[in-house]
Amino acid sequence: MKLAVVGATGEVGRMMLKKLEEESIEPDGIDLFSSSRSAGSLMKFTGKSVEVRELREDSLRTYYDYVLFSAGASVSKVFAPIAASYGAVVIDNSSAFRQSEGIPLVVPEINGFLLKDYRGIVANPNCSTIQMVLSLYKIHRKFGLRIVVVSTYQAVSGAGNRGIVELEKQEAGSQDHAVFVRKIHRNVVPVIGDILENSFSVEEMKMVNETRKILGDSKISIWPTTVRVPVMHGHSEAIFCETEKPFDLEDLRVELRASEDVVLTDEKFTPAEIAGSDLVYVSRIRSFDSHRFLLWNVADNIRVGAATNAVRILKMHAGGV
Amino acid sequence: MKLAVVGATGEVGRMMLKKLEEESIEPDGIDLFSSSRSAGSLMKFTGKSVEVRELREDSLRTYYDYVLFSAGASVSKVFAPIAASYGAVVIDNSSAFRQSEGIPLVVPEINGFLLKDYRGIVANPNCSTIQMVLSLYKIHRKFGLRIVVVSTYQAVSGAGNRGIVELEKQEAGSQDHAVFVRKIHRNVVPVIGDILENSFSVEEMKMVNETRKILGDSKISIWPTTVRVPVMHGHSEAIFCETEKPFDLEDLRVELRASEDVVLTDEKFTPAEIAGSDLVYVSRIRSFDSHRFLLWNVADNIRVGAATNAVRILKMHAGGV
Repeated sequence: MKLAVVGATGEVGRMMLKKLEEESIEPDGIDLFSSSRSAGSLMKFTGKSVEVRELREDSLRTYYDYVLFSAGASVSKVFAPIAASYGAVVIDNSSAFRQSEGIPLVVPEINGFLLKDYRGIVANPNCSTIQMVLSLYKIHRKFGLRIVVVSTYQAVSGAGNRGIVELEKQEAGSQDHAVFVRKIHRNVVPVIGDILENSFSVEEMKMVNETRKILGDSKISIWPTTVRVPVMHGHSEAIFCETEKPFDLEDLRVELRASEDVVLTDEKFTPAEIAGSDLVYVSRIRSFDSHRFLLWNVADNIRVGAATNAVRILKMHAGGV
Repeated sequence: MKLAVVGATGEVGRMMLKKLEEESIEPDGIDLFSSSRSAGSLMKFTGKSVEVRELREDSLRTYYDYVLFSAGASVSKVFAPIAASYGAVVIDNSSAFRQSEGIPLVVPEINGFLLKDYRGIVANPNCSTIQMVLSLYKIHRKFGLRIVVVSTYQAVSGAGNRGIVELEKQEAGSQDHAVFVRKIHRNVVPVIGDILENSFSVEEMKMVNETRKILGDSKISIWPTTVRVPVMHGHSEAIFCETEKPFDLEDLRVELRASEDVVLTDEKFTPAEIAGSDLVYVSRIRSFDSHRFLLWNVADNIRVGAATNAVRILKMHAGGV
C-alpha cells in the first residue's frame, strides 16, 4: 500500500499519522506533504523518520492507493482531483467536495456501504457533524428525526494548532485575537466561519447539509448554533430532537447502546475527560414527553471528528467494506 | 426609607449595593447582614462606612421598608417570612419562594404590574431565566411561544465568588475542584445543581417552571440544557423557538426593538464584551421558516440576572408601579 498525507504537519494531519500507527496500518511507502512553510521538517512514522516535502503541482502525479488530505478546501480543490485521476482513493477532510453530487460523505459506522467498489474522492464530514450523527443515526432509523436543535461547545483545536496557540497566549495575558473573531479566553464566541446571507454561519450550514446527506434524509429540519469555547480538545453538543414515532427513554438507550463507537454514560460528560478517546460519549438523556428528547454528547474533535473517521474510511475501504 | 440587605458581602449582595447607588436610591438607614464568617467587615455605601452584622434570629424583628435577600434558599426560608411579618417588602433572590402560590415572581419589564399594592415576599427569578424571558416576552405576546429549546453558557460567577476563585486557582495550575462537579478551566460542565429524578438538573427545572410562571402560560414546552463555561461574568444562551402564529424575521426584530432593556445588535455578542451592562444583548436572529427561529443572547448574570432585577423591583414598587 502506497500512502500520502497532505497537510501532515497540522493538528489533524499529525493525528492521522498517529491513528494509522494505532490501527497498525503499515504502508510500503508514505509521502508527507505540507506547505513550503513546514517543508523540510522530519516526522516520525512507525519508527522511521520521514521528511515532509512541499506540495507542488506535480507532487501527486503518481499512483497512490490512498491520499489523505487535511490542508484546507482550497488545497483540496486543486490537488484532490489530480490524485484521484492518478488512481488514488482520496480521503478529504476539507469541505471542498462534501456537497458535490456523486461524492460520498462518509461516517463508516453509518454509511460505510458507499465505499464498496468506490474509487475517487471520499469526503470526510465536519467535526461537529460526525459526533452528532454518530449519536443519532440509529435513533433516526428507528423513530425518524423530524427536528434537531443543536448548540455546540467547540474546542479551539478545531481551528488547528493556531487556535490552541491563540488561547494559550491569551491565558498568558495577550489581548490580541486573530484566529477567532473575539478573545476566546474567559469568553465564548457564537460565530464559527463566515456569516452567510441567511444569517447562519458556514459551520452551522455544514451541520445542516452534511447531516441530511449522511443520514440520507433531506426532510430533517436542523437548527444549529455553533459556538467556540475556551477548551483545548473535545467538542460538546446539547442536542434536542423531535421524532416522527413515539418512544420511551429506554427505547433510546437501546439504540444508543447498539450504536457503534458510541458510549452511553452518565460518568464522562465533559470534554476534558474524554480527550484522546475515539468514542462518542452520550449522557444526560431526558424527556418530558414521547416525541422529544434532549441529550448531551462529547467527543475528541481531532480524533472522532476528523483523523479517526478518515482512517476508519481508509481501513474499511482497504478491507473491501 | 429603611433598608436591609441580607447576604451583603456576596457577589450579588455587593452588586445590589452598587446598583442602589447607581439608581440614586439613598435610604434613611441601611443595615447589612451576613453570616458570622463575614460579620464585622466594613462596606462602603453612598460614601459612608457600614459595618456588616451577623444575621441572628432577632435581626429582622423590626420594621424595614425593603429587605433584599441574597444569602441562599435556606436563609431566605427562615428569615424572609419574619421580615415580611414585620411589614417589609422582601425581595428574595433565592429559589425559596419562586414557585410558591401567591408569591409574585417578577421581572419588572414583563409583570411589574404584580407589584401594585403588594406587600410581602417578592421572588427574584433565576439568572438564566431573567435574560431569556426578557428577550422573548414580547415575541410570546405577539406570536405565542409553543416550544423553547435553550442551551446555556453560564459564567462561574453564577456560583458566587467561590466560583470565580475556583476558576482562577485552576488557571494558575490547581487540579482541585469543589464548587463545580468537574474542573472548569479549559472545560465545560453540563450539570448545574443536582440532577433530579426526571434527569433534568435543578437549574434546568428552574428555567422551565419560572419561565412559565413569569410569562403566565403553563403550556409553553421548555427544553433547557444548562452548562457552566470558563467565563467570569456574563451568561450566554442559544435559544430556539417554535411559535403558534407565523412571523417573518422583521416582525421579530420589531418586537425585540420594542422590548425594554433589550438591545438588538450584531456587534456585541460575547459575554466578555457586555459584562458590566444592565441590558440583554440579542443577536444572530435567523430562521429557515415562518414558525421557528434561533437567537443568541448575552447578559451580565450578576446584574441583569440578579441585582439589577432586584433593584428594579424595589424601584418600581417604591414608585407605586
